[in-house]
Amino acid sequence: MTQSPMTQPPTPAPDFDRETAVTRRPGGRSIYDTDLPGAWKVGMGINGGLLLSVAARALSAELGEGPTPHPHPFSISAYYLSTSTAGPATVEVDTLRRGRTVSTASASLCQPGEDGTPVERLRALATFGDLAAQDGDIRTSAKPPHLPAPEECFGTEAAPAEFKAQSPLLDRVDLRLDPACVGWAVGAPSNKGEIRGWFRLPEGRDPDPLLLLLAVDILPPVSFDLGVPGWAPTLELTAHVRAKPAPGWLRVVHSTRNFAGGYLEEDAEVWDSTDRLVAQSRQLARVRLPKK
Amino acid sequence: MTQSPMTQPPTPAPDFDRETAVTRRPGGRSIYDTDLPGAWKVGMGINGGLLLSVAARALSAELGEGPTPHPHPFSISAYYLSTSTAGPATVEVDTLRRGRTVSTASASLCQPGEDGTPVERLRALATFGDLAAQDGDIRTSAKPPHLPAPEECFGTEAAPAEFKAQSPLLDRVDLRLDPACVGWAVGAPSNKGEIRGWFRLPEGRDPDPLLLLLAVDILPPVSFDLGVPGWAPTLELTAHVRAKPAPGWLRVVHSTRNFAGGYLEEDAEVWDSTDRLVAQSRQLARVRLPKK
Repeated sequence: MTQSPMTQPPTPAPDFDRETAVTRRPGGRSIYDTDLPGAWKVGMGINGGLLLSVAARALSAELGEGPTPHPHPFSISAYYLSTSTAGPATVEVDTLRRGRTVSTASASLCQPGEDGTPVERLRALATFGDLAAQDGDIRTSAKPPHLPAPEECFGTEAAPAEFKAQSPLLDRVDLRLDPACVGWAVGAPSNKGEIRGWFRLPEGRDPDPLLLLLAVDILPPVSFDLGVPGWAPTLELTAHVRAKPAPGWLRVVHSTRNFAGGYLEEDAEVWDSTDRLVAQSRQLARVRLPKK
Repeated sequence: MTQSPMTQPPTPAPDFDRETAVTRRPGGRSIYDTDLPGAWKVGMGINGGLLLSVAARALSAELGEGPTPHPHPFSISAYYLSTSTAGPATVEVDTLRRGRTVSTASASLCQPGEDGTPVERLRALATFGDLAAQDGDIRTSAKPPHLPAPEECFGTEAAPAEFKAQSPLLDRVDLRLDPACVGWAVGAPSNKGEIRGWFRLPEGRDPDPLLLLLAVDILPPVSFDLGVPGWAPTLELTAHVRAKPAPGWLRVVHSTRNFAGGYLEEDAEVWDSTDRLVAQSRQLARVRLPKK
């Protein structure tokens, strides 16, 4: 803020930060107002990672205050209850335990229903802490993914027109999919159950713990790579944020090992530019098999 | 119940069923009474999977009733808030959404604190459904583990005396660890970050969806196999139950790929006697490194 506004116009906040902002209501209850952005729709509803980020912003505002601030999600579990729509929403935070190293809270995301009464979209439980206070010991045995350079990958501009029409959020992110995992887009899925890609915000804003919650659910459903088209609505998603990400691109790997009974487990790993595994997630999603 | 009590004495309920039983209180709120069993202690507190099973019993009682009964956990996420002790406890269930195929609820497990006011031990969110209603399509790519026969594995009677003294729950389960993963018990961990074993109830009661919630947290912490002794308290554990298990032994595999910053991700897979992957779980646990 030492630069003169005359010499450089103020940089507008990146879409992600502006469109997931929350404002605390005055009063005793911890209620945050927000406006769910239609620009992050994908298929029928708003992207699940975006909703998770909104809930986490309210949780961070609540738990990041006080004598032992816990601003960062260590673990967050979201249960999706009904389809979100663009427009006003509230997040009510209920703090369950304030601890020395971590604090735990519940968050309820609601929107007014057709008759005006609140309808719950998402309920989350989360434990927050301070990633800067973690020790530096790293014994991770997982290996970072090998991806072609971003400029050799498929950007969202290459997505099929039908897919783009259903996914306005593609304009909000800079996503580059590994060509080895995009055969499904032309009817030739690899059947390995894996999709890999680079991810960053188009404004060049560097990743932070909150953005990792968007990253874990930003790739297309891994069921596409198994030749099963159609959206896979998430029942539950749990994400662990394990470190502050370094500046630069993130690499995201989605995979599944258990597709059965009409449900799909989908794991995500997020790696930063220093090859640190900064987030892991798992979700349970419903898949509809095409009629034979 | 057609047999005469004269010819065959009634079989007592297995310890697990008796000791995780819940009783609904009369009245409008969904409060279930239970008595947390000291026999399931491990280290400082009561086993996390046992507490998850108690919460799931109350959830199943609540959501398993009605015109569209949803008796089985599809996904359950537990956040552990304080250390449980043997004795009376309540589980309060709050139903968030009753749906056609699944229902979602919150469960809060509390015990009276020193001054009598309730202290929350665990908060869970869960989506329940009917496993019998799932389709029969199975495309699981995960491979079942190879274990030596149960009689060639290490039973709990072989556990070191110090370990047994801290773990009364070893008397409640029939657990047989793969000899390849027990080097840690004699100071020679494999450092692979994996522990595998057979698991069943000693009474010969066959597994059901509820028992799978115990199974996902019944092996020793996988950090033992990384040469890090000491208990690893669970912050959060999410389990997905993916099918009704077939009768017989279960095989459980615990593994970790991300041990960093004083926290450990621990995954569990539970396989039934027909080689079906019936449950998966992931937890985030805190690990204390030995002083150098």
